[in-house]
Amino acid sequence: MRWPETTTLLLRADDGVLHVTLNRPDARNALNALMIDELDAVFDAIAASREVRAVVLRGAGGHFCAGADLKEVIAGGLKAPAPGEADPIEAWSRRFGAMLRKAGQLPAVLIAVCEGAVLGGGLGFSCVSDIAFAQVDAKFGLPETTRGLPPAQIAPFVVERIGLTQARRLCLTGAQFRGREALALGLVHECFDDETELQTRLDASLEQILHCAPQANAVTKDIILKVARMDMDAVLDDAARQFARCVRGPEAPEGIAAFMQKRAPKWARGT
Amino acid sequence: MRWPETTTLLLRADDGVLHVTLNRPDARNALNALMIDELDAVFDAIAASREVRAVVLRGAGGHFCAGADLKEVIAGGLKAPAPGEADPIEAWSRRFGAMLRKAGQLPAVLIAVCEGAVLGGGLGFSCVSDIAFAQVDAKFGLPETTRGLPPAQIAPFVVERIGLTQARRLCLTGAQFRGREALALGLVHECFDDETELQTRLDASLEQILHCAPQANAVTKDIILKVARMDMDAVLDDAARQFARCVRGPEAPEGIAAFMQKRAPKWARGT
Amino acid sequence: MRWPETTTLLLRADDGVLHVTLNRPDARNALNALMIDELDAVFDAIAASREVRAVVLRGAGGHFCAGADLKEVIAGGLKAPAPGEADPIEAWSRRFGAMLRKAGQLPAVLIAVCEGAVLGGGLGFSCVSDIAFAQVDAKFGLPETTRGLPPAQIAPFVVERIGLTQARRLCLTGAQFRGREALALGLVHECFDDETELQTRLDASLEQILHCAPQANAVTKDIILKVARMDMDAVLDDAARQFARCVRGPEAPEGIAAFMQKRAPKWARGT
Repeated sequence: MRWPETTTLLLRADDGVLHVTLNRPDARNALNALMIDELDAVFDAIAASREVRAVVLRGAGGHFCAGADLKEVIAGGLKAPAPGEADPIEAWSRRFGAMLRKAGQLPAVLIAVCEGAVLGGGLGFSCVSDIAFAQVDAKFGLPETTRGLPPAQIAPFVVERIGLTQARRLCLTGAQFRGREALALGLVHECFDDETELQTRLDASLEQILHCAPQANAVTKDIILKVARMDMDAVLDDAARQFARCVRGPEAPEGIAAFMQKRAPKWARGT
Repeated sequence: MRWPETTTLLLRADDGVLHVTLNRPDARNALNALMIDELDAVFDAIAASREVRAVVLRGAGGHFCAGADLKEVIAGGLKAPAPGEADPIEAWSRRFGAMLRKAGQLPAVLIAVCEGAVLGGGLGFSCVSDIAFAQVDAKFGLPETTRGLPPAQIAPFVVERIGLTQARRLCLTGAQFRGREALALGLVHECFDDETELQTRLDASLEQILHCAPQANAVTKDIILKVARMDMDAVLDDAARQFARCVRGPEAPEGIAAFMQKRAPKWARGT
Repeated sequence: MRWPETTTLLLRADDGVLHVTLNRPDARNALNALMIDELDAVFDAIAASREVRAVVLRGAGGHFCAGADLKEVIAGGLKAPAPGEADPIEAWSRRFGAMLRKAGQLPAVLIAVCEGAVLGGGLGFSCVSDIAFAQVDAKFGLPETTRGLPPAQIAPFVVERIGLTQARRLCLTGAQFRGREALALGLVHECFDDETELQTRLDASLEQILHCAPQANAVTKDIILKVARMDMDAVLDDAARQFARCVRGPEAPEGIAAFMQKRAPKWARGT
């Protein structure tokens, strides 16, 4: 698999796992249009690949992501577009939401490592991950409304992640909180103190994921994400069809045989 | 702003905050038709106002609200309406639900102070607030089905608030519980022991809210509440439009300038 | 009430409570087609009955349920059906989901007692119950994807039960966990150590349920389950109609009178 050329991201593939590092450390990895486009392209490549089973998203330089690069958003000026003309600010905003949505729907398992600044759009990434780890001192926040702006492409994912009840309080108070509160809110799944603990936890999760069959996991994620979009009976109809297809292989015969023979299936990695 | 004349409510406006007190202490602030109508009118006035940024809802005399005034509900008799005729009991019930829904959709931030009796419809108010505080000894409950009635206009808001899993147990067991369990269930956001602690917590929340731009907060709440009603792509499309409108001011230029200059924005209140 | 003849289930009716025991202990109560059909028939009978107010679902021999009987699923061979022909594997899968859905929508209160193996479809039962108890050492798990299969008819109910955020992690890691984590995840409502504690907790729940009016509880459950399927205004419209019908009896007059007279209503059981 060849990955897109990127200047704002570092990519490293390692036996089924793709490590994607947001790499604008001088700007605390703030999201600009180029980074959004590059992430979008990388996510498309992952979706097309059958090799990547997990993606680890992290920031360079000790910060995850400080949110949108506001200077760039308003660099084109604040003049409203003429009637019928595209609105560049609206397009900037929507493009970020489309990329976040794509991240959340990757067939691979998306893991987010939250440390340092996890603000605005950075917090958005944690909302669409399958597994999120937070360093206990990480600074989570939604400061948008204190600056006169709505967290427009982020708030909907916060609702999806932690529910309306907690989302409405966080979004309407310009909330700031640390890793343990992120865990209590259900925004992330695990906390860590330092790099050693992170690696231990990350390795354990990756080993679990790599013990699951790649196609079965992709199908499962597809089914799970349909629950919010389709009637329950339609979800179950679709899931039954996908189940029958999976039973007929190629993964299931190997998986069932391995289970009967008390051995690891061929796709398993690790010790 | 002139507020509606009310006899069951006390109103006090204070620099962006409207304090609404349910004031039928002899009936533990049970909801009768007049109180429902007056709340409805006050909520309309708040929605039309640009001055109110937060609403604090509380009960007089140490109780929040003991639920619907059942005697009034059945005062017109139990005879079924003739075919084609309006049903006064159905109308009473539905009117309460419509008012609760309006409360939950106020553009201002709604804060509920739960103490003493928080029963039936009183519990409903806590379900639609943006921030809810519970006194540790407050008595929450859904006793309706023990009296042969469904909590018809309340149960749907309980599901919305704490999810199906906990709601179904509470509603089907005539649940009774105290403030700390309300916190554990996610029904409320914070507990307090006494009036001093309440005021400290309330002041802290109000200061945070008043640091957020009024219009940006109203737009954010509108976006958040759309998640349950619209497809995610439609929510994000709408949110991008609202984002562009907010960037073009008048709040955003002030908010961004204040952030760059490390000063409080003009709309901020408090120390 | 006469219950269906069953060979994979033990049934015992006891004054408003039906005890249903999955009875294939040699297979850790794994679900085969016969057990699914018998459960389906028993659930239909419960829905048609006005006598059953609570159902206690448990497994024989110390295990709740080890999931689907995979050998049976694939016993017919893996050949794909001819075009236009029914797919027996897809049908097997869908039939299980339909039965689970029926369990979740019973007008009676469904209580699940989770102990020993609570795997795959067994975990699915806990997801559709109104109240779930877990023995602290019970082994919950979703091992499907480690065997090359999606938990097709289970994952949607896991999302409904504990939300997308936790469900995606569990389903994509072949999760294994014990009773206390099931409680922390919100999968179950209470934990117990041993049979004595279970009986104490079960008796307390049953007494609460049997204090609620049967028809009011059935109506309430119907309203609650509509929230996921209908627009909120439509839910409230329907609920107002059901409320008016309940007010006009026969339960409400007795329930309100009992409340005024500070006595237990006629339908109440227990001490």
